[in-house]
Amino acid sequence: MRFSELYAPTLREAPSDADLISIKLLIRGGFVRKVAAGVYAYLPLGLRVLKKIENIVREEMDRIGCQESLLPIIQPAELWHESGRWDDYGPEMMKLKDRHERDFTLGPTHEEIITSVLRSELRSYRQFPLSLYQIAVKYRDEIRPRFGLMRAREFIMKDAYSFHTDWESLDKAYKKFYNAYSRIMDRIGLRYLVVEADSGAIGGNESHEFNVLAKSGESTLLYCDCGYAASDEKAEYMLFDKSNSVEQMSPLERVETPGVRTVEEVASFLEKQPGDIVKSLLYHGKKGYVMTLIRGDVTLNESKLKAHLGDQSLRLAEPQEVLELFGVPIGFIGPIGLPDNMKIVADHTVKPLANFVVGGMKEGTHYVNACYGRDFNIDEWADLKMVQEGDPCPKCGKALKGTKGIELGHIFKLGTKYSEKMNGYFTDENGNSKPYIMGCYGWGISRTMSASVEQLHDKNGIIWPLSIAPYQIIISALNTSDEQIMKVSEDLYKILQKKNYEVLLDDRELSPGVKFKDADLIGIPLRITIGRKLKEQKIELKLRTSSPKDVEVDEKYSKVLEKIEELLNNYNPGNFLEVR
Amino acid sequence: MRFSELYAPTLREAPSDADLISIKLLIRGGFVRKVAAGVYAYLPLGLRVLKKIENIVREEMDRIGCQESLLPIIQPAELWHESGRWDDYGPEMMKLKDRHERDFTLGPTHEEIITSVLRSELRSYRQFPLSLYQIAVKYRDEIRPRFGLMRAREFIMKDAYSFHTDWESLDKAYKKFYNAYSRIMDRIGLRYLVVEADSGAIGGNESHEFNVLAKSGESTLLYCDCGYAASDEKAEYMLFDKSNSVEQMSPLERVETPGVRTVEEVASFLEKQPGDIVKSLLYHGKKGYVMTLIRGDVTLNESKLKAHLGDQSLRLAEPQEVLELFGVPIGFIGPIGLPDNMKIVADHTVKPLANFVVGGMKEGTHYVNACYGRDFNIDEWADLKMVQEGDPCPKCGKALKGTKGIELGHIFKLGTKYSEKMNGYFTDENGNSKPYIMGCYGWGISRTMSASVEQLHDKNGIIWPLSIAPYQIIISALNTSDEQIMKVSEDLYKILQKKNYEVLLDDRELSPGVKFKDADLIGIPLRITIGRKLKEQKIELKLRTSSPKDVEVDEKYSKVLEKIEELLNNYNPGNFLEVR
Repeated sequence: MRFSELYAPTLREAPSDADLISIKLLIRGGFVRKVAAGVYAYLPLGLRVLKKIENIVREEMDRIGCQESLLPIIQPAELWHESGRWDDYGPEMMKLKDRHERDFTLGPTHEEIITSVLRSELRSYRQFPLSLYQIAVKYRDEIRPRFGLMRAREFIMKDAYSFHTDWESLDKAYKKFYNAYSRIMDRIGLRYLVVEADSGAIGGNESHEFNVLAKSGESTLLYCDCGYAASDEKAEYMLFDKSNSVEQMSPLERVETPGVRTVEEVASFLEKQPGDIVKSLLYHGKKGYVMTLIRGDVTLNESKLKAHLGDQSLRLAEPQEVLELFGVPIGFIGPIGLPDNMKIVADHTVKPLANFVVGGMKEGTHYVNACYGRDFNIDEWADLKMVQEGDPCPKCGKALKGTKGIELGHIFKLGTKYSEKMNGYFTDENGNSKPYIMGCYGWGISRTMSASVEQLHDKNGIIWPLSIAPYQIIISALNTSDEQIMKVSEDLYKILQKKNYEVLLDDRELSPGVKFKDADLIGIPLRITIGRKLKEQKIELKLRTSSPKDVEVDEKYSKVLEKIEELLNNYNPGNFLEVR
Repeated sequence: MRFSELYAPTLREAPSDADLISIKLLIRGGFVRKVAAGVYAYLPLGLRVLKKIENIVREEMDRIGCQESLLPIIQPAELWHESGRWDDYGPEMMKLKDRHERDFTLGPTHEEIITSVLRSELRSYRQFPLSLYQIAVKYRDEIRPRFGLMRAREFIMKDAYSFHTDWESLDKAYKKFYNAYSRIMDRIGLRYLVVEADSGAIGGNESHEFNVLAKSGESTLLYCDCGYAASDEKAEYMLFDKSNSVEQMSPLERVETPGVRTVEEVASFLEKQPGDIVKSLLYHGKKGYVMTLIRGDVTLNESKLKAHLGDQSLRLAEPQEVLELFGVPIGFIGPIGLPDNMKIVADHTVKPLANFVVGGMKEGTHYVNACYGRDFNIDEWADLKMVQEGDPCPKCGKALKGTKGIELGHIFKLGTKYSEKMNGYFTDENGNSKPYIMGCYGWGISRTMSASVEQLHDKNGIIWPLSIAPYQIIISALNTSDEQIMKVSEDLYKILQKKNYEVLLDDRELSPGVKFKDADLIGIPLRITIGRKLKEQKIELKLRTSSPKDVEVDEKYSKVLEKIEELLNNYNPGNFLEVR
């Protein structure tokens, strides 16, 4: 492609509402344009990157025998009523009515559609296992769309669904997808970490996330040299199960703590440590209210609580709700004197404690010397702790390390959640009717583009890995009115294209400075500079992440071509940055 | 691909609501499934066809220097308010609100979006000409979705937009697209006809449609051996402009015509011919009501009327409206005694007439012996006639022929319609600001799949042209428990794949009858049958549209391979059918 003909309007400044380096650089480099909050147009360079990502994902899906199909974007509401998710999904689901006032959603995911398409036709055990995927546009009506393509409202995903007659078959497919996802990551060439993950509202029993490492990542990941890795929502830790072996329980006492609210304030006021306080947090779910207790110096992990109680609709009670329920502001509630039928779930961090501080259930007071078993009863013990860097690895006990990631892939064992609700049954060898077992496997295609830029960039612009660069080589012809320079530039352009390199020929009538700046901004892996040195039979080869090197020009460009091959074969910009 | 692993559920019967042979066969063949009215899922075979169509279109767009991009599906209402089309487009436009109650549409077309994306950046004459395209999902909320993929509500289009500083440049681009579209048709291999077309609500000055010929086509096309061809909405005819050279105008008379309503009824009642009647049709548009007159035996072409009056919002007045306006039922209105300010537009067919019949403007009456000029005045003459087979060609005067087509491509010279309204201005060589000139170019991707089946099928199923067949070759291994048959089948499968043929190996444990039926239904161009004849060293090659031929199997399959190449190279199923 000739740069003079390419529509790639580069900008000096990013728009003021671009909030992450990736969206700033993608806009400045002419890859994308914002059309509305969270809604983007892909210009030719952006689409090239997108197609390369799509093709890598497509090839790896095809390789494991997953068959490409294409499901509709608008989905009838009835299917979501069947699965029970029409209301569950909440305002993040974009909804519309057709001219006959029939409800539709712009699909955020396609479990309902695929189950409905297959349910009348996938009937005999002979038809299993089966897996289908699509690469398509999806929607999520984010309340505040941000981070460019990372939290867009319209985005491109690959989603796959697998169907099985038994768990063993699902396990096999899950492993295949796991390996395919690892290959996709390897082929793209970004640093990544696979972690155990929470399956959240999608449901199911086992789940892994494939994260690209980046400082700006929204996911906190914990990992250990022993191989253990998990998202913070899922991470466990080695529990040294100590019960409280208190020598003496001191008498319970209600003390005045006027105006103190946070754990830190209470601890400081009472001259104690945060670890001596037990936090009481009230949640509301499908079965009403539940009180949770956790040590004051650790954070409660809501995903673990939801999983423990099997209730994805759980939410922290609002201050106003708490006030109406107990007549006490939220900072002063506690486990003593609760209604008998209110369940108390305590985190394991509470177990070794005695003589601790809890809310006084009266404004401006706390109890000191509280002890469970004596002053109140705990109904259930659970691991509710948000694990942090430094906590002991649940596998080996060594201190966990922490890093930040951007989730690109997420795979789930769904089990029979959808098939049971949506009549997805098959007949087994013995003539019995059973719900089939499903897996689902998502990959963020447009997000991959952003994640790559978040991980790989420098002050001059984007650094694309070779695998997804819009062009592999840019030829910067420095003086377009110099016949010799243009002849060599055109020659090389044609020769390299014949060798199946993707080449951008910068034939614009612009200064060398502007051409170099654009080449760096756009992030092309290899720049060939053809300028004054040509008089000495030399041109310059420069990888995006290294300094330029002169190469001699002979008649058939043999040295140049050899060097280009060598440079590109060894180009690994992921090594260039210290991320993890 | 092994048929045993392919998800292509074939059906014996089409669902009862499948209304065209194409959707019946596409569903029966396992290519698509209906999810809701006008909303379809593409199963693996269907997606393969779709991708092949996309790739042909993509290659021809790339070849003319049109650059691929990707625009959002959801479009903010503000842009449509700017162009004035938010209300114009009517209930066919799918609309939705996001969680902040902001209006969006699911784009039926992308003139607004592309203009808004480019307007702030396409500013200097140096940046022109430019053309961009996308292949994407589009929406049209049909009141009664029907004809399968032909009038779906969610469908896939290629849409391109070109930008120019002068008309000459637009003309050049238009010609390029015209040629590219002809190449796309040639490459797909269906019989087609390019016709002059009406540009309708899209607007602009010149427009052509690319139609696949099919008996079930919704478009009526007129054409002539001299090369003239037009859609019936656009078609003109050679006008032998005769004014009325009446010897004697008879006296106007109002006669009783109780209970007669249609032209035929009136003619029969008065013992006249339909050509002696002048029909009066009342329309309503932006400037109020307008009365149109046309000879009783021809049909009024609303597209011509809209174009003549420059008002795309024109519609026939409702019976109730007419009754309220004139106090007369719709069958008895006429041009005599109309309010002075009501414009009368008459078709050229009225010009030679005198002493004709018109509505009496009183229920149950008609005027006979009416003459324009004497009894009422005509404000404008226009060509409003729906041209039909047999009318004289406007170029050469010979009788026009008629046929039916399915519109796949439509190209338009838009001019400055959108750039003027949406601030799409550039600075020319002299520093003057001017609106840029646009063209737009659509191609129905998913519709191409249906149109192909409409044109090419027989009682046994689909007949794909080689270019878009999901697989080129199917190997029917007739007895999967016969080792020799399976060895040859597997050998050929591998050899043909290595030679880059797309091959489906029917390795299912099913009877020969079922395998043959499926191969025909799915429409694979070449079937290789490997069965009993193998004992005599023979296998059978059969093109979808011819009878089988035995070919000898030698050790390296050289004769088989040679024959396959020859058969596929000469496969042209379009010649097999008499369409035009």
